[in-house]
Amino acid sequence: MTERVTPGYSDDKVAVLKRLRRIEGQVRGLSRMVEDDTYCIDVLTQVSATTKALEAVALKLLDEHLSHCVVNAAIAGGDEADIKLKEASDAIARLVRS
Amino acid sequence: MTERVTPGYSDDKVAVLKRLRRIEGQVRGLSRMVEDDTYCIDVLTQVSATTKALEAVALKLLDEHLSHCVVNAAIAGGDEADIKLKEASDAIARLVRS
Amino acid sequence: MTERVTPGYSDDKVAVLKRLRRIEGQVRGLSRMVEDDTYCIDVLTQVSATTKALEAVALKLLDEHLSHCVVNAAIAGGDEADIKLKEASDAIARLVRS
Amino acid sequence: MTERVTPGYSDDKVAVLKRLRRIEGQVRGLSRMVEDDTYCIDVLTQVSATTKALEAVALKLLDEHLSHCVVNAAIAGGDEADIKLKEASDAIARLVRS
Repeated sequence: MTERVTPGYSDDKVAVLKRLRRIEGQVRGLSRMVEDDTYCIDVLTQVSATTKALEAVALKLLDEHLSHCVVNAAIAGGDEADIKLKEASDAIARLVRS
Repeated sequence: MTERVTPGYSDDKVAVLKRLRRIEGQVRGLSRMVEDDTYCIDVLTQVSATTKALEAVALKLLDEHLSHCVVNAAIAGGDEADIKLKEASDAIARLVRS
Repeated sequence: MTERVTPGYSDDKVAVLKRLRRIEGQVRGLSRMVEDDTYCIDVLTQVSATTKALEAVALKLLDEHLSHCVVNAAIAGGDEADIKLKEASDAIARLVRS
Repeated sequence: MTERVTPGYSDDKVAVLKRLRRIEGQVRGLSRMVEDDTYCIDVLTQVSATTKALEAVALKLLDEHLSHCVVNAAIAGGDEADIKLKEASDAIARLVRS
C-alpha cells in the first residue's frame, strides 16, 4: 500500500513554502506591471523569471520524491516499485514538455 | 524614441489580468498542497499546469507585442525597427529556454 | 501572395547549414554512444547538448524570418501582414512548448 | 565502484538506435530544406518535430536509467545510491532546462 503520511518533501517543507510565497508575489507583481501598462518586453522578462522559479520548485520536489518515495519503493520492491517509477517518469515527462 | 504610452497588450489587458489572477490562485493552491502534505506527484502535476498557464500568458503578451509594437516599428523603419526586433528575439529566446 | 523565392535565412544559409551538419554529427555520435553501451547519464548529457544546438538553430531561423518576411509583410500591410504574424506566433508557440 | 558493463538501456538498445537513426534522417532533411530555400516557417515546424523526437529519446533513456541503475543503487544503498540519485537529478534538470 502507498504510504502517503510523510511525503518526501516534508524535510524541506519550510524552504519549498518560502519559495512558493515568493513566486506568488512575483505573479502579483506581474498583474501590477500589466495594470501599470509596463512595457511588454519587461513584463515578458519577469514572466520568464517566474517560470524558471516554478521549474526550480518542481525540480526540488522531484528530487525529494526520488530520494524518498522512489528509493523506499525500490527497496520494498514488487508492484509498488514499478508504480512509483512509472509515476516519477510521467511527472518528469510533464516537466520536460511544460 | 520608444513610445511606451500604450503597450500592445492594452486591448486585452482585462483578459491578461484575469489569467494572472487565476495563476496567482494556482500558486496559492500549491502552497496549500505542500502545507497539507499532499502527495509529491500530485503537487508536481499542479506545478506543470501552472507553468503551462504562465507560458500561455507569455505567448499572448508576445503576440500582442509583435502585432503592435514590432509592426509599428517595422513601418516606421530605421534603428527603432532593429532595436524592437532584437528585443523581441531576445524575449523569445528567454521563453524558449525557460 | 506569399513570396517564397528568397526566404529570410538565405543570407545566413551557409552558417545555418554548417550548424545543421554539426548537429547531424552529434546525433550520429549519440548512436555510437548507445552502440558502445556508454553510461546512460553521459548519453543524456549529449542529448541535452544536441537539443540546445537545435533550439539555437530554430531561434536563428526565427530571427531571420522576423526581420525579413514579417517586417516586409508589416510594411506591405493588409491580410498578408496578419497571416505572417499568425504564422510566426504559431511557430514561436511550438518552439516554446517543444 | 560504478558498474557500467550493462547500462539500463541495453534491453531497448535496438529501439533507441532506430529512433536515433530516424532523428539523424530528420536533421539531414532539415539541411535539405535549407539548401532548397524552403519557407522558414516550414523549416521551423520540422525543427520542433526533431526536438520533440530527441526529447522522447531522452525520456526513454532516463526511464531505463531510473528503473535499472538507480533502483539497483537504491537497493545496494550507501554512497553509491546518493551519487546515482544526484546524477539522475542533474540529468533531469538539464533536460527540463534544455
